[in-house]
Amino acid sequence: MTINVGFIGPGIMGRPMALNLMKGGHKLWAYARRPETLQPLTAAGATACATPAEVAEHADVIFTIVSDTSDVQSVIFGEQGLIRKARYGTVIVDMSTISPTATKDFADRLAEKGIEMLDAPVSGGETGAINATLSIMVGGKTDVFERVKPLFECMGKNIVHIGGNGAGQVAKACNQICTIVNQLGAAEAMLLAERAGVDPRAVAEAVMGGFGASRMLELQAPKMIARDFEGKVESRLHHKDIRIVLDLARAFGIELPASAAAADVLERLQRRGGARQDSAAVFSVLDTA
Amino acid sequence: MTINVGFIGPGIMGRPMALNLMKGGHKLWAYARRPETLQPLTAAGATACATPAEVAEHADVIFTIVSDTSDVQSVIFGEQGLIRKARYGTVIVDMSTISPTATKDFADRLAEKGIEMLDAPVSGGETGAINATLSIMVGGKTDVFERVKPLFECMGKNIVHIGGNGAGQVAKACNQICTIVNQLGAAEAMLLAERAGVDPRAVAEAVMGGFGASRMLELQAPKMIARDFEGKVESRLHHKDIRIVLDLARAFGIELPASAAAADVLERLQRRGGARQDSAAVFSVLDTA
Repeated sequence: MTINVGFIGPGIMGRPMALNLMKGGHKLWAYARRPETLQPLTAAGATACATPAEVAEHADVIFTIVSDTSDVQSVIFGEQGLIRKARYGTVIVDMSTISPTATKDFADRLAEKGIEMLDAPVSGGETGAINATLSIMVGGKTDVFERVKPLFECMGKNIVHIGGNGAGQVAKACNQICTIVNQLGAAEAMLLAERAGVDPRAVAEAVMGGFGASRMLELQAPKMIARDFEGKVESRLHHKDIRIVLDLARAFGIELPASAAAADVLERLQRRGGARQDSAAVFSVLDTA
Repeated sequence: MTINVGFIGPGIMGRPMALNLMKGGHKLWAYARRPETLQPLTAAGATACATPAEVAEHADVIFTIVSDTSDVQSVIFGEQGLIRKARYGTVIVDMSTISPTATKDFADRLAEKGIEMLDAPVSGGETGAINATLSIMVGGKTDVFERVKPLFECMGKNIVHIGGNGAGQVAKACNQICTIVNQLGAAEAMLLAERAGVDPRAVAEAVMGGFGASRMLELQAPKMIARDFEGKVESRLHHKDIRIVLDLARAFGIELPASAAAADVLERLQRRGGARQDSAAVFSVLDTA
């Protein structure tokens, strides 16, 4: 069944995701703050819209994947926001990584107008977006999740309905704890191996066969060893995410010491001018210490 | 080819490892500080010895897997130690997790007597020991590694020759960084999910599909969620290991912030009386904070 789909935010992640929705046979209405970034989508048959409101005029399910909480807020509630034209029953699916608390608030405000919302942040990076193998963590009502599921299946593989509105963002925050902490652990292990005069490749291979194995070690150790920090997942995004985590921890009165340690290293990386470097560059913070 | 094998330290790990060596067709001479712990090995055909020296009288390749650096030292160099009876060309393979620096020193002292040494610490826990799927990280000469390799293959799957003497222990230290740090990350993620009122099982499932995936999350999240901290890998061992890591870091003048955070949590767990609990009990330190 062809669905009229809206898409807002065709960045590194959003562009391949939108293309995969079109490959799935769906009609796409797209908006970007910088209209030139829509070109790959219009070339594939999408209709460019001048405002989020215009997207909402045509689409029944609208995906947003933008940088942070304030971007989501203005896309939905801004002067030209989705809410101006969204109809009763329209579904807004936010795939950005933002605050779970703000997400719940957005969902409540939309519900008052009969507009449904899902939070559906992703993990798996650009490769996962291109190959439609993203992990998608969804918060919202079960029946809305079921309606949108065929569209999620165009973009991802491990699609988990976590709970009510905001629960997807909580899961993503937890995902980022593991991602960011494991990455720092990998950096520390690779650095120690090097300083001890031992081949870090052999160490990474050995560790991948035992209890220390992680997706981050597998993906990031080669970059750290090669000092290849060209931005794929830029460190500023991890920095933003770990601050969401620590804000939540503060709100719940819990202590997350490994996350706090990682936040500190990411903070130092930002101050050193590494915001646009790949998150693997946390290695370089320790390497020069 | 049947090899005359020595085995010292038939604990939770050592016992199944020794049994797997016998299953491989090798003759076993075994010693334990508490002789009654040798019973499962003698029942399978091993010969009990009264001292390490007696093991060295009979065996050409001798495996040791004991608790810490001082235990290895007394097994090798003590009054009844291996060195009293080991012959020129005897190979001592230490599979304990101990200091890389001390290991190098032991190897040098043994070399003076024509005794070969490998350090070959393992990862994979009791299950890996029973199923002969351990990851084995080996330091020492290549020709000695090649000679012992068939015996390693009776006990493990991912057998990596890392480098010279001590390199196996460096790799194990790196492995423990990843293991212990990833476990703390998993604990923080599971705790945040619970406090946010979200099903931690669903979160763990989602995270395992993305960049946050790790062997520790997979194995330990269920224990944390169930508050099942019965000792498998006792936290005192992680505590010992992370102190080896921080000693190395100090020696090399590097900063390992995630390892330091994990060491602090493990230290608090020891002080709370959790030394014999499973290392997953780091969760409980944060849970009551």
